[in-house]
Amino acid sequence: MNGRKGSLISVRTDVQVMDCTLRDGGLVNNFMFTDEFVKDLYLANIKAGVDYMEFGYKASKEIFDPKNFGKWKFCDEKDIRDIVGDNKSDMKIAVMADVGRCDFRNDILPREESVIDMIRIATYINTIPAAIEMIEDAHAKGYETTVNIMAVSKVNDADLEAGLEMLAQSSVDVIYLVDSFGAFYPEQIEKLAQKYLAVAEKYGKKVGIHAHNNQQLAFANTIEALSRGVSFLDATVNGMGRGAGNCYMELLLGFLKNPKYNKVATVSFVEKHILKIKEEGAVWGFDIPYLMTGILNAHPSSAINFIKEKRTDYAMFYQELLDDAL
Amino acid sequence: MNGRKGSLISVRTDVQVMDCTLRDGGLVNNFMFTDEFVKDLYLANIKAGVDYMEFGYKASKEIFDPKNFGKWKFCDEKDIRDIVGDNKSDMKIAVMADVGRCDFRNDILPREESVIDMIRIATYINTIPAAIEMIEDAHAKGYETTVNIMAVSKVNDADLEAGLEMLAQSSVDVIYLVDSFGAFYPEQIEKLAQKYLAVAEKYGKKVGIHAHNNQQLAFANTIEALSRGVSFLDATVNGMGRGAGNCYMELLLGFLKNPKYNKVATVSFVEKHILKIKEEGAVWGFDIPYLMTGILNAHPSSAINFIKEKRTDYAMFYQELLDDAL
Repeated sequence: MNGRKGSLISVRTDVQVMDCTLRDGGLVNNFMFTDEFVKDLYLANIKAGVDYMEFGYKASKEIFDPKNFGKWKFCDEKDIRDIVGDNKSDMKIAVMADVGRCDFRNDILPREESVIDMIRIATYINTIPAAIEMIEDAHAKGYETTVNIMAVSKVNDADLEAGLEMLAQSSVDVIYLVDSFGAFYPEQIEKLAQKYLAVAEKYGKKVGIHAHNNQQLAFANTIEALSRGVSFLDATVNGMGRGAGNCYMELLLGFLKNPKYNKVATVSFVEKHILKIKEEGAVWGFDIPYLMTGILNAHPSSAINFIKEKRTDYAMFYQELLDDAL
Repeated sequence: MNGRKGSLISVRTDVQVMDCTLRDGGLVNNFMFTDEFVKDLYLANIKAGVDYMEFGYKASKEIFDPKNFGKWKFCDEKDIRDIVGDNKSDMKIAVMADVGRCDFRNDILPREESVIDMIRIATYINTIPAAIEMIEDAHAKGYETTVNIMAVSKVNDADLEAGLEMLAQSSVDVIYLVDSFGAFYPEQIEKLAQKYLAVAEKYGKKVGIHAHNNQQLAFANTIEALSRGVSFLDATVNGMGRGAGNCYMELLLGFLKNPKYNKVATVSFVEKHILKIKEEGAVWGFDIPYLMTGILNAHPSSAINFIKEKRTDYAMFYQELLDDAL
């Protein structure tokens, strides 16, 4: 069957849906979500059958001044508990910790003192040893762990294979394929997913995918990876996330056939909260400048600025990008 | 190589890009484009290396009152010539003729009297004999022809195979795979493209694809079909088209590696004209109601109305759709 796992009408019981709205979406609004937004998202995700909800980052308060960010940049235990209590639900709670930006030894509590279930460690290819240190710390404290290798569209094959081997031999549970720049086409995701899965399965690990929508391919890339055997699937409500945003949760839940998933709960949340924050000025989603950084395999920051400045001279912007690339 | 034709960095010289902005986009604004818009689009398409530009429909004036539509609903010879003169360019000109809605014997001139190069005949599965009559008329008059079988996501396999055989044995040049409802996933497009190609190639015909963006898959489905051997690729500027719209020309030209294609010409047109008509109230593109009709394999008309009425009660809309489907 052309190397695909499962069919379009069957249930893949290994699938785990991860809502990253607060974390990747927090990059849109500096994590300034109201408590009502967060509480309603938590309840909507439970209703929607989402398996994990990522609340934000565990960022170091020595590096980042809490005055400049909403509380989900830091995810203090108390702040999460204010929303979820002891989280008496089947949905698990995740936070992200960046290599080099997290005081993980102090700020990540022992698992039994925390309502958090999973620590997601974000790393670049050249900081994998530091990521493994964080993985082992979190694992020893009792957490599930993922490792998210960012910007792999800039990494050569030999380095990627070496990095995957190192990670697969660590205590990590899930290795994420991350398309930070929205640069990959489904054909490439097919091959990358197979590469990640081959290494991960040798060591009994799972593989996840986190896609960006620069070329309107976040959903297509996510279901391509899924059909190859990737099981942890990141999405955000209405695609909310940095720049072009992410795979839409509405699309993903509409695709999955497990009856536990309920896209109506998600679109009701959109109706109540997302339309409002968009009206109030939060901007994300596919647009021509993101397409251009995606095609050029470049960081979206210049496109984000272009849109912030309300520029529309796309042709000139493309020339600027080409200059930067030289 | 997993059944794919060409690679991600090579040129597929069989590719033909078709701009359908006036035709499918005309369904957004009743074909009320200014002459400046049409002229600039014509020039932009030439610069962009587009191979065919579809100007609109050849609709019957006995059925449709010209007072209610812009002139591109009818594509009179004189109106096209007012824009293109004798079309001294490498780009060819196409128009669409719907089965049962076109006085093709009178309204389609002999090829030598017309600046039109290609007649695209749109049919449903159950009107294929009428489509073949139109194909043979246009072919005898000297035109290139395509046939676009609409709504195939509602057609059973046996009927589709029989219809494809009938069409492949006609004089038609290109048979189009059309995802009218934006219901197909890339996995399905892969199999359908192979089915269309198998029949078409037996008789020396080409295959095209026309996708809709209900699930943010128009571009993904287009490049999936392309990689399987489909060569005629429909797209519209900024995805302008009915409901969720089409494959974005910007995305498609950004993907293709033939140096003749130039996406900058297209984004310059967006900057000058598309932003303006959007500000003036033209509405198209991905939105939750289209996702829902796409998932349910339903005509987008109810979603178009939902958006026109500025409703946002998505959850209730989904229940209404389910009622309609029963």
